[in-house]
Amino acid sequence: MSDPRVAGAGVTDFGEHPERTGRDLFAEAGLAALDDAGVPADDVEALYFGNFMGELAEHQGHQGPLMAEAVGVNAPATRFEAACASAGAGVRQAVKNLRSGEDDVILVGGAERMTNIGTAAATDALAIAADDLYEVRAGMTFPGAYGLMARSYFAEYGGNREDLAHVAVKNHEHALVNEHAQLRKEITVEDALEAPMVADPLGLYDACPITDGAAAAVLVSEEYAEDHGLDAPVSITGTGQGGDNLALQDRPHFDQTPAADEATDEAYADAGVGPDDVDVAEVHDCFTIAEVLAVESLGLFERGEGITAAREGVTTRHGAMPVNLSGGLKAKGHPVGATGVAQIATLTWLLDGSHQRAGDVPEADVAVAHNAGGTAASATVHVLEVKS
Amino acid sequence: MSDPRVAGAGVTDFGEHPERTGRDLFAEAGLAALDDAGVPADDVEALYFGNFMGELAEHQGHQGPLMAEAVGVNAPATRFEAACASAGAGVRQAVKNLRSGEDDVILVGGAERMTNIGTAAATDALAIAADDLYEVRAGMTFPGAYGLMARSYFAEYGGNREDLAHVAVKNHEHALVNEHAQLRKEITVEDALEAPMVADPLGLYDACPITDGAAAAVLVSEEYAEDHGLDAPVSITGTGQGGDNLALQDRPHFDQTPAADEATDEAYADAGVGPDDVDVAEVHDCFTIAEVLAVESLGLFERGEGITAAREGVTTRHGAMPVNLSGGLKAKGHPVGATGVAQIATLTWLLDGSHQRAGDVPEADVAVAHNAGGTAASATVHVLEVKS
Repeated sequence: MSDPRVAGAGVTDFGEHPERTGRDLFAEAGLAALDDAGVPADDVEALYFGNFMGELAEHQGHQGPLMAEAVGVNAPATRFEAACASAGAGVRQAVKNLRSGEDDVILVGGAERMTNIGTAAATDALAIAADDLYEVRAGMTFPGAYGLMARSYFAEYGGNREDLAHVAVKNHEHALVNEHAQLRKEITVEDALEAPMVADPLGLYDACPITDGAAAAVLVSEEYAEDHGLDAPVSITGTGQGGDNLALQDRPHFDQTPAADEATDEAYADAGVGPDDVDVAEVHDCFTIAEVLAVESLGLFERGEGITAAREGVTTRHGAMPVNLSGGLKAKGHPVGATGVAQIATLTWLLDGSHQRAGDVPEADVAVAHNAGGTAASATVHVLEVKS
Repeated sequence: MSDPRVAGAGVTDFGEHPERTGRDLFAEAGLAALDDAGVPADDVEALYFGNFMGELAEHQGHQGPLMAEAVGVNAPATRFEAACASAGAGVRQAVKNLRSGEDDVILVGGAERMTNIGTAAATDALAIAADDLYEVRAGMTFPGAYGLMARSYFAEYGGNREDLAHVAVKNHEHALVNEHAQLRKEITVEDALEAPMVADPLGLYDACPITDGAAAAVLVSEEYAEDHGLDAPVSITGTGQGGDNLALQDRPHFDQTPAADEATDEAYADAGVGPDDVDVAEVHDCFTIAEVLAVESLGLFERGEGITAAREGVTTRHGAMPVNLSGGLKAKGHPVGATGVAQIATLTWLLDGSHQRAGDVPEADVAVAHNAGGTAASATVHVLEVKS
């Protein structure tokens, strides 16, 4: 059993593209990934595609075959949906199937079109990642849910809005050099603290934007990579997935994400690494507090210590444990169904030094991607390593 | 690599349950499956869940974790969506993962709630299994799409409405002894021919009903079955999946379903069987013409000969090649996201003789399940065999 390689990846610019369809966005990302990989579309044996709100935003379900056609892939296509972790769930299945030896080339990806329906409708569509009967109908929105999680964290471990502001400032700064990022704009801690409140204690700069975009990656077996002489030094060496009750009210704590803890434990054990081995991480910072919870679930910081990581400069580009060098969901943008694969793209390019970020960050050999759905009722964690 | 066993299965009554939520329906089916299997919920390592229109019918996405909680399963849960083949896609991944040796117990299932939104809204929701931009906005509905397919078939191979009526009569008759079927009502060829036209040449009795319901099956590794002394003689020995262009207009023919041909070839090769080995089949007869296309894709009849199979009695209960002994989607009902697993349940109970159908049909050792999404832009085929 050998680990699959990331042969290539592609992403669209993340941002507002209300005039572009989901299939148009995915065609761009998918073709870029195949081109980056040097793998012909005819070699692709399956497409695993992540999408969350196609039914509501584009009146379109059954997007697997649609997206396969968009990239010229004549192979079975399946849509995975685990809210914001949809693409991560697809990556996980691809890793499993490539390892089993049954498949050699799987295209993973995702796309989301959100801005065309406007902020109110997009917020409503995002809300159904929570429990409609017991949360949404009571008025719960995702800023509200993460606001509760932040309040609970502050009460349990300490921390304040200024700590969270440092997460936003960091991720905005990271996005400045990401040519695909939605928000390439430097902000200050004061900007964040003075921004309009969205759901106390979270203000406007604590939340990721609403984003159109797509991402894709070509995953291949080690054998295929060698047989075809591919330049694909990055492997996915660990995969993990965890689940939790969908509704916050059904959990013992609001200030931890046990599904991500489980996914982490499984992924690290699978890869044979531990948190001390991790050089760089992309985590699911849909809100600033989510980054804090994520780095703690990943074991990169002790429980209660993630809150000050950005303020102390540990998670910044030149810190000891850089987190979200892409800008994260916060500043890169969050096209929901694409995010899990966009993380894989970022980390692959960081590890192999192939793209614009070469030389931009400390050398990294082991990377981790953390993708969460809803209030982390779903979570996937993947470990990527570069073969030196 | 050993083939997974179907340790147990459960289904709700299929029909109109507008007052029951999707989670309520799936709890019934999932708990019944675990009980039938004699497998504790704590042993389940993953839930693969099929659902198609939850966003539109229940304002609920992210149903994986919701459904895991409903059956008391504390494990990662992923929703698969391939329109009406959603559950089939989940079964396929479960088979792959169980074979790889990484997992031992996977709960597969699906649920759909449809009648609560009324026929017009359900028809609109079903339509987005087709291409919204190029089919739905032009007025295409699924009865319309399958009407085109039937007209094309008649033109290419011959056949008429009376041939199709015999498919409906057969499946209604089969459903009479299925205690979970939605339409337990005998009909005649005249009834079918005189029923209101829906989309020429398809009348009311050529179409499956709109259905609420759920289905679940516990799939386990052979090792788990043996270690736990389970009475689980039925294995899934072959899996196949095919894909096609989503829109009919992008295909060379309307009278064939090449995605199902591909799924069939793969599944038969995987199982090491051929069409002559098949004793019984459950196929995706969302419309009567769809059963004809299915039995031809499965190689059970030559191209152009499936149309007369029901009329000649070959596919009836006591015919040489019984098809849709459950009543099929046509009479059993079609809760979209559950159908692929409901087929597995029916065939398991037929093969192991455990349920009400024991003695009801000729002895069967090899069965095949055919699940299609949209106009068969997605198709999965599974081969089930009983170990004698």
